[in-house]
Amino acid sequence: MLINILILASEHQNENLGMDQTFLIDHYGIGWVVTSYSIHITELPQKDSVVKMTTRGTSYNRYFAFREFWLHDQDDNELVKVESIWVLMNEETRKITPINKDVIAPYQSENVRRIPRLPRPERIEPHDDVTSKEYQVRWSDIDFNGHVNNSRYPEWMLDSLPMEFLNNHEPANIDIRFENEVKYGNRVTSSVVVDSSDNAKIKTVHEIKSNDVLSASATIVWKEIQVKGND
Amino acid sequence: MLINILILASEHQNENLGMDQTFLIDHYGIGWVVTSYSIHITELPQKDSVVKMTTRGTSYNRYFAFREFWLHDQDDNELVKVESIWVLMNEETRKITPINKDVIAPYQSENVRRIPRLPRPERIEPHDDVTSKEYQVRWSDIDFNGHVNNSRYPEWMLDSLPMEFLNNHEPANIDIRFENEVKYGNRVTSSVVVDSSDNAKIKTVHEIKSNDVLSASATIVWKEIQVKGND
Repeated sequence: MLINILILASEHQNENLGMDQTFLIDHYGIGWVVTSYSIHITELPQKDSVVKMTTRGTSYNRYFAFREFWLHDQDDNELVKVESIWVLMNEETRKITPINKDVIAPYQSENVRRIPRLPRPERIEPHDDVTSKEYQVRWSDIDFNGHVNNSRYPEWMLDSLPMEFLNNHEPANIDIRFENEVKYGNRVTSSVVVDSSDNAKIKTVHEIKSNDVLSASATIVWKEIQVKGND
Repeated sequence: MLINILILASEHQNENLGMDQTFLIDHYGIGWVVTSYSIHITELPQKDSVVKMTTRGTSYNRYFAFREFWLHDQDDNELVKVESIWVLMNEETRKITPINKDVIAPYQSENVRRIPRLPRPERIEPHDDVTSKEYQVRWSDIDFNGHVNNSRYPEWMLDSLPMEFLNNHEPANIDIRFENEVKYGNRVTSSVVVDSSDNAKIKTVHEIKSNDVLSASATIVWKEIQVKGND
């Protein structure tokens, strides 16, 4: 849901700047595609709390754009910070194109030589103790562009973990990288390795594959859910 | 999403009347469970349109409560009308209990001998030409109470249909009935029979089963999506 809402926030900005999805396709035959998120969660919002999502197209170079997101509560406490890397993709060839000056200008992003490097998710090693689950891609997993919605990857990743673990832990940090698009009708395998060598800071390493091709990878650092007292 | 929002609307009313989920469990050990919806869709909301969901606990008898929902656009046109039947279930035994007077009183529902009967979905017959798809229940399909969220059944039902059909049709009428709860870790089979004998009014009959036990059934009547002209 967090990912859905941040996508919504960035698309709202695109619209306000006259650079929405439909316009980019119609005029340039291109579209924005996210390649990675680095998500740092201080606190997840509670039921009925009102939150504010802010976003900024911070900087870009020849091929990559760096976009930041912040989720704040009503007292302006930062709940979540997200850094992300985006590329422009040719809608027909599905290949990356250089960032068009006319398209990026309205964001007043800084043109830089190097954009920040996000932490690269770890990969599962052959000797790791892996748990895997298989999924049929559902119609409701698919975006208007015929590919799996990005928010489904974390869903499959989480689902590979035991329910008891999920009921007692929440993510503190998520580094996720999208590699190859998955289409309708495909089956995907969600694999996970749990590293609980540091008990206070359990880490999980995830891979989503479709036909043995890597679609997404992630490293998640967890914290135990604290039951709040009545103070 | 429509089902998620109507559940939210009814839970908001429950809260406003001091009869929310948590209160019912803590004080009576019971909870509301929907057994069927009859959904009539005049028009689905467009992107960015503002809609209003209204609900009323209309009537009840010894075991069943009849609740209605309306979705209106900003000009007060009715987009969707939903009729639904609810029961109170003991949270421990998962058995239906008679409707408690104290629990129903705040709704000012009419106490009737017979509540309206909703259309019963058709069932798939042995000689029908059936298409089936199998799903792993995901953690994100599960409600706080450990059972599959009701909104997932229509999702599985729709997904059993070809993508091309879904891209060109939208539901005009959905009669859905929930029979048995599905839990985490289960696998479900979504089966469908397409009746296109009346080409202007294609009808599909759906069954969701888990371990050969019927979980939900539905009849959906479809209309072709009309591409709107610029008039």
